[in-house]
Amino acid sequence: MAFKTDIQIAREAAKRPIQEIGEKLGISSDDLLPYGHDKAKVSQSFIDSVQDRPDGKLILVTAINPTPAGEGKTTTTVGLGDGLNRIGKKAAVCIREASLGPNFGMKGGAAGGGYAQIVPMEEMNLHFTGDFHAITSAHNLLAAMIDNHIYWGNELEIDTRRVVWRRVVDMNDRALRQITASLGGVPNGFPRESGFDITVASEVMAILCLAKNLTDLQERLGAMIVAYRRDRSPVYARDIKADGAMTVLLKDAMQPNLVQTLENNPAFVHGGPFANIAHGCNSVIATTTALKLADYVVTEAGFGADLGAEKFMNIKCRKAGLAPSVVVVVATVRAMKMNGGVAKADLGAENVEAVQKGCANLGRHIENVKSFGVPVVVAINHFVTDTDAEVQTVKDYVAAQGAEAILSRHWELGSEGSADLATRVAEIADGDSANFAPLYADEMPLFQKIETIAKLIYRADEVLADQKVRNQLKDWEEQGYGDLPVCMAKTQYSFSTDPDLRGAPTGFGVPIREVRLSAGAGFVVVICGEIMTMPGLPRVPSAEAIKLNADGDVEGLF
Amino acid sequence: MAFKTDIQIAREAAKRPIQEIGEKLGISSDDLLPYGHDKAKVSQSFIDSVQDRPDGKLILVTAINPTPAGEGKTTTTVGLGDGLNRIGKKAAVCIREASLGPNFGMKGGAAGGGYAQIVPMEEMNLHFTGDFHAITSAHNLLAAMIDNHIYWGNELEIDTRRVVWRRVVDMNDRALRQITASLGGVPNGFPRESGFDITVASEVMAILCLAKNLTDLQERLGAMIVAYRRDRSPVYARDIKADGAMTVLLKDAMQPNLVQTLENNPAFVHGGPFANIAHGCNSVIATTTALKLADYVVTEAGFGADLGAEKFMNIKCRKAGLAPSVVVVVATVRAMKMNGGVAKADLGAENVEAVQKGCANLGRHIENVKSFGVPVVVAINHFVTDTDAEVQTVKDYVAAQGAEAILSRHWELGSEGSADLATRVAEIADGDSANFAPLYADEMPLFQKIETIAKLIYRADEVLADQKVRNQLKDWEEQGYGDLPVCMAKTQYSFSTDPDLRGAPTGFGVPIREVRLSAGAGFVVVICGEIMTMPGLPRVPSAEAIKLNADGDVEGLF
Repeated sequence: MAFKTDIQIAREAAKRPIQEIGEKLGISSDDLLPYGHDKAKVSQSFIDSVQDRPDGKLILVTAINPTPAGEGKTTTTVGLGDGLNRIGKKAAVCIREASLGPNFGMKGGAAGGGYAQIVPMEEMNLHFTGDFHAITSAHNLLAAMIDNHIYWGNELEIDTRRVVWRRVVDMNDRALRQITASLGGVPNGFPRESGFDITVASEVMAILCLAKNLTDLQERLGAMIVAYRRDRSPVYARDIKADGAMTVLLKDAMQPNLVQTLENNPAFVHGGPFANIAHGCNSVIATTTALKLADYVVTEAGFGADLGAEKFMNIKCRKAGLAPSVVVVVATVRAMKMNGGVAKADLGAENVEAVQKGCANLGRHIENVKSFGVPVVVAINHFVTDTDAEVQTVKDYVAAQGAEAILSRHWELGSEGSADLATRVAEIADGDSANFAPLYADEMPLFQKIETIAKLIYRADEVLADQKVRNQLKDWEEQGYGDLPVCMAKTQYSFSTDPDLRGAPTGFGVPIREVRLSAGAGFVVVICGEIMTMPGLPRVPSAEAIKLNADGDVEGLF
Repeated sequence: MAFKTDIQIAREAAKRPIQEIGEKLGISSDDLLPYGHDKAKVSQSFIDSVQDRPDGKLILVTAINPTPAGEGKTTTTVGLGDGLNRIGKKAAVCIREASLGPNFGMKGGAAGGGYAQIVPMEEMNLHFTGDFHAITSAHNLLAAMIDNHIYWGNELEIDTRRVVWRRVVDMNDRALRQITASLGGVPNGFPRESGFDITVASEVMAILCLAKNLTDLQERLGAMIVAYRRDRSPVYARDIKADGAMTVLLKDAMQPNLVQTLENNPAFVHGGPFANIAHGCNSVIATTTALKLADYVVTEAGFGADLGAEKFMNIKCRKAGLAPSVVVVVATVRAMKMNGGVAKADLGAENVEAVQKGCANLGRHIENVKSFGVPVVVAINHFVTDTDAEVQTVKDYVAAQGAEAILSRHWELGSEGSADLATRVAEIADGDSANFAPLYADEMPLFQKIETIAKLIYRADEVLADQKVRNQLKDWEEQGYGDLPVCMAKTQYSFSTDPDLRGAPTGFGVPIREVRLSAGAGFVVVICGEIMTMPGLPRVPSAEAIKLNADGDVEGLF
């Protein structure tokens, strides 16, 4: 039995004009700003006009710790959205945009897979509607204005050794990680060390994804710390007077992008903050807009539930006043097997014992999600080699945890395969049994917030931090930043900081290497391990094989 | 009498949906890729489908040497286009796109002025349809792939001191002019000196504007020289295998952008190569497409006729097989006065003698344009302080040169003011009296091409060049680049290389500082003076005042 590739399926999609997709949500064609015939932005004026409407139900899709087997979190997000529409519900999907640069290193990604995808796939892997380019421009305008300020006399008395605002480019370019800039003598400024990050790592990206509207956007941009003086006092972007122009550059990018699933259901694809040094969710404005237009909104968060769902709850929901009605934890039989110790090459053979053993990872995620007061459903994303006995093993395990696991075949069958999942998810959402609360209060001291997450979510024994880190957190509390949530940056492969510790480990400490303040985005980044904010290209980058073929189609990108 | 500002007039424009504008040229809405409601790209498939149609008449608008008084070349281009439509002709306008970066230094520019403008003005000064961002991405992908190639073993044996491919950003950022990259140890590569240019200075931009189609684009991209080996042999972009992926990044950007004039007539705004180190015209694909769709196409070329029209004729027309039917040289009474020695502050007072004296500059441009075998009309772009006597002085002078000067009031009156100019221009174009030929043959040696332009156009006595420059030109001839045209880079303010030498100077030499080979674009750049390929921001950049006001309109950009 031969399966079609994701790109084959995506190219065969019977796309409808984007105006028809908008109509399903009550957006008139005047309120859609089209980008070609299959993409559009929803106008700010329309968004303003629906603010008084009631909200739909918010459904979060998260997952177990990722394994090389693949879990299909986005695939399930899309499949569930289509499934809800199939059973007669008015539903929309909200996911993140892809970063352009990495697609020229490794192959670009689909948004979903099989018969649960969002299209147009090529555009979403290339320039899309230009949002990331706008973020790059806004970020680099601020950088140019900082050096320009120093050049013309440095009235703000910036310590040129302490300019923390780097530049960004949406490209995997290791040569730019660390540079010396302003060389070449007097006309080029004062030489200093700096570097580039990839665009998704920009605080501007995180802000775009958390801002409620353009006014909030500008305030947050102005609040970003760009440098320090010799006395260590901070210099803000608003001191550089860059916040207004940055907002102008971002005004179109703030409008959410509407596209469609293979089944012509509405999907918002907007924003894409780095899931390591930021919160890794699609934009608040897309999610809140979708909630005004649909009765059910299915969204997702980066990595496993220990990272993605935790930040979704403690950062995005807290900041935006959102509350999920139900959480879907995606698992696969294959991933259970890997968590149970099976090598990737052996995943094809039935191994009920390994599935059973690997379920411990899933079990802890279920427990964690419940601790936010939200009901949980497990979606078993079906793979062709799964046996009935293996699937039943997962179902039995989940039932023993007081939850429910449903097999879903959206990858193979589209919404026909996810109707059962959708039916049950809708029932739970409609039951209004959720009683969501973030894990910690705003007032809790910063270090205690870190400990709370490490102990309650990761199940660590302790948090290990130098006095320097503890003092830094105290300083920020004294400066008025103590109310901020913490944004954890650690490996996605384990509950611990050791990527090889699969399953449900205990008896470990969480070492903190560094803390950073994102004053505009509004969180304290807590770094537990190496973070690479500018990737490199592999020996043979996929760019070498990317080209237009004789039909004008893109080859090699997928 | 109070006049409205350009931005006030632009905001009051009664724009029609872009599909209606397309209809005027026979482009169906399926063949337009909309970007919002007032911008669209013309699909490549539609462009392919009209290739067998006959061409309309091509009209070039050029000008005297620019003065601080302003000449209104773009304003006249737009006014003439509207005038032609007013008198019942099917006409389209083709102009260049604006660069985003410089707008945050000095105020952004309108496309035209008064009642002869192209809209939407804000978008055209910001991200527009993303073409420049695509060029930036393609350029920087190649840069990343070069350093990545060196990092992984440098099989091509690139001399890291001789990597000539820099990076680009669409921002005025002097701190990036000269940098040391790849610092930080083994994981970041081999440290080397490099730097950034502004995006419009990229050879990729020049190529996008000269390529006939996507196949031609990819070939030219592959032919770019990116580095040299220790034996001085060139390494090409195709050796790095970047040409396919760059073409994919540029495939949408290659499609011309359609917008409209204030009078709802079609305008193509596409491409914008740096007029100094490149040829400074809008894209060949926009011009050739417009010629298939309209009976008259009005376009322009950067700076005065000595630079812009010369490169338009000798580079763009030669390469694209284009031939203008008539050339309009724009002059103003005020600019004549400045050329005649009047200071800017005194331009308001009548001064027939200064006008008479300043006409020498205009006279030489008329003579030069005629030397290409194309008939000339002078458009006197009317300014409110012009007196009848001053206007008559210009008319009499031009008549004595065997040409015709027509007063045009499009700035104040729109097409009502340019109908006379349009009528006469159409008559001349219809008369088919042009017998266009470039100034020199492909086979002429490179140095002789430079001498031909310097002596026949600039009226210099001699060209001054070191043996090193002459040897370099000889080397390129031996390598097969002798057939290329030369792309002159000199001050736009004078026929000479001294910006203060106004009027029609004689008795000077043209010193050549440097020559550069743009092997992909297909010309040899001849640099006569300083060229700044990365501008800086002023002490108080306009960005400080740019913001969204309470109505959501952009303030401070204009």
